[in-house]
Amino acid sequence: MREIAVIGIGQTPISENWKQSIRELASQAVLNALKDANRNTVDGIFVGNMLSGILSGQENLGAMIANWSGLRDKEAFKVEAACSSGAAALRVAIMAIGSGELDSVIAVGVEKMTEKKGVEVTESLATAADADYEVVQGLSFVAINALIMQRYMHEYKWRHTDFAPFSINAHENALRNPYARLQERITKEDYKRSRMVAEPINLLDASPIGDGAAAVVLVPVESLKRLTKKNGRPRILIVGSAASTDTLAVHSRRHPLWLSAAEKSARFAYSQARVGPDDIDLFELHDAFSILSALSLEACGFIEPGQGPRLGLEGEIRPLGSIPISTLGGLKARGHPVGATGIYQINEVIQQLRGEAGPSQVPDAHIGMAQNIGGSGTTIITHILRIE
Amino acid sequence: MREIAVIGIGQTPISENWKQSIRELASQAVLNALKDANRNTVDGIFVGNMLSGILSGQENLGAMIANWSGLRDKEAFKVEAACSSGAAALRVAIMAIGSGELDSVIAVGVEKMTEKKGVEVTESLATAADADYEVVQGLSFVAINALIMQRYMHEYKWRHTDFAPFSINAHENALRNPYARLQERITKEDYKRSRMVAEPINLLDASPIGDGAAAVVLVPVESLKRLTKKNGRPRILIVGSAASTDTLAVHSRRHPLWLSAAEKSARFAYSQARVGPDDIDLFELHDAFSILSALSLEACGFIEPGQGPRLGLEGEIRPLGSIPISTLGGLKARGHPVGATGIYQINEVIQQLRGEAGPSQVPDAHIGMAQNIGGSGTTIITHILRIE
Repeated sequence: MREIAVIGIGQTPISENWKQSIRELASQAVLNALKDANRNTVDGIFVGNMLSGILSGQENLGAMIANWSGLRDKEAFKVEAACSSGAAALRVAIMAIGSGELDSVIAVGVEKMTEKKGVEVTESLATAADADYEVVQGLSFVAINALIMQRYMHEYKWRHTDFAPFSINAHENALRNPYARLQERITKEDYKRSRMVAEPINLLDASPIGDGAAAVVLVPVESLKRLTKKNGRPRILIVGSAASTDTLAVHSRRHPLWLSAAEKSARFAYSQARVGPDDIDLFELHDAFSILSALSLEACGFIEPGQGPRLGLEGEIRPLGSIPISTLGGLKARGHPVGATGIYQINEVIQQLRGEAGPSQVPDAHIGMAQNIGGSGTTIITHILRIE
Repeated sequence: MREIAVIGIGQTPISENWKQSIRELASQAVLNALKDANRNTVDGIFVGNMLSGILSGQENLGAMIANWSGLRDKEAFKVEAACSSGAAALRVAIMAIGSGELDSVIAVGVEKMTEKKGVEVTESLATAADADYEVVQGLSFVAINALIMQRYMHEYKWRHTDFAPFSINAHENALRNPYARLQERITKEDYKRSRMVAEPINLLDASPIGDGAAAVVLVPVESLKRLTKKNGRPRILIVGSAASTDTLAVHSRRHPLWLSAAEKSARFAYSQARVGPDDIDLFELHDAFSILSALSLEACGFIEPGQGPRLGLEGEIRPLGSIPISTLGGLKARGHPVGATGIYQINEVIQQLRGEAGPSQVPDAHIGMAQNIGGSGTTIITHILRIE
């Protein structure tokens, strides 16, 4: 396969945005990314989005965003894999370039969620779970994760407050990220007092939805020879990319507390990149709920099963720790516009690799990993990027 | 890029199917295709689907169908491009193999539409059009196509009955297709007397929705050397594959009667396959409405602009004509389960190339083309297949 470089990134601030439509949000991210890449156009655009049909009454989003971004006539589709739609669109972009079908591609993730009532959004998010075997029982998406967290605390003897460092770290790292939805410091006391959503998940265990879009521009490395010399910027390569799936319904899994699709996709990405967990300088994981931070760290080999919270309690997840996570706020504080999240993660890994991450910069970041999860551990996509 | 072969096809009959869920339909097509390919598994599965979120309350369809088909842990996403979702999933499958990311892939299209009320289905189909600039005016999807047909008849001086041959041919060709939804002969008189839907489109100008799924198995040609010798079957290669887009809103186009995305994607596919319109032995076009048959034939170079109906009136679109279309019923009579249609078309092209098309077999079919359209001319994807 052709080696692939990311030459541009673009984001919009995540907010409750009633002024911009879904096409405007996406196009803003696309144009920001094109500007960052110093280009006017690309051959194709793949859109990661989960809920435009249900929440905005709009499908055919690929062509719509291509056209609104000045890319009329280019190849364009929407790619959906629940909350991992963003990384899934990136997978397709990588395949498009790797195959030689296209020579320059944008992957953009976008979601517009706040115009609808909360109950409608909750219902729409439940479409990531199994409609016939989970949702029909009255389970919402947060309830499914609550059952997992409950079981985890029971099985491995953790108290609820042991998860506080995940949320505190995320909020701390988002403080100076202008794209983050929640830019406020929280304390252990705030975490303890936070309103219960679905026991044991409280409001500060859960990531906020939002409206937002993020984009990346990809080209084959072979086309970069001239370019990078000109602008003097180091090259950022995608050195690992893999996806794996598991059942939608958690009760059908071999073990409800093990993210086997995370393990498999990470293992495959490590082998492509010829690295192991010890080589990863930062890890943008999918902290939709704090329990997911623990499970992801375990499945990807950063700590043994059942011990995830220890990395938080010992400070290892902070920017100066051994495995910094949620370095610009994560889903928890940057926000989680579901289909866009996977591309926000890639944007943030690249900000870190470029040394543009501000106060939460990870020192000497050379290799970064991002992992996007769709459903409660169902579709899991891992990317590893390296600067050279 | 690696050369790609289709080694298996599978379909389900299109019907009003209240007995099988969306996952069961899709898995049946997947298992049929695997059986036809004489394989047990593949590396990944890409699902073309438009409406599962809105009509079935189910997203994350890639993983769901992978798991239900016995492909747990494989890479899987849903690809959406309105009614061209099926061909879009095939594009992704081609890129996945072409890039070397995966070595065997299934593209499956599935749609389940008949459990909801007609008005809900009509509303959901309108998500293919522009929600902010078309649908907000009260336009349904058939109404948009009716405006196009109205204008076409005015501009090029055709009577409504001049379109009858498109529907009559489609119904004739579906008579012995066991997968077709409508297996009944129609006459010019039936066409004339048919109930009006949105003037000038009557019921026999329009394709029926339905529940159905179709799948294809793809591998790189290089892996086929041993295999084809063993089973003695000729190889079927994908020799052209291209997509192009236009605006969603028809009023924003340069010319409302010209499918510029069809022209561009066909032109690109021709050049990849090193063929021209004269070399195409059959053309599975997107006859969602009879007007679209005319526009597609024109945009792809089979006749000059404005003259599409002539090919019908002169019998050239029939199995023994110069450019057979809808050879197993087309969208009009085989049926149009929207996200599945693009893969049904590929199945049918392959049935023709294999000489397995029954009474509507096109003699000496060596090169077949399929074209799938999402929106009223918005996303258009063209594939050319050749037997050798």
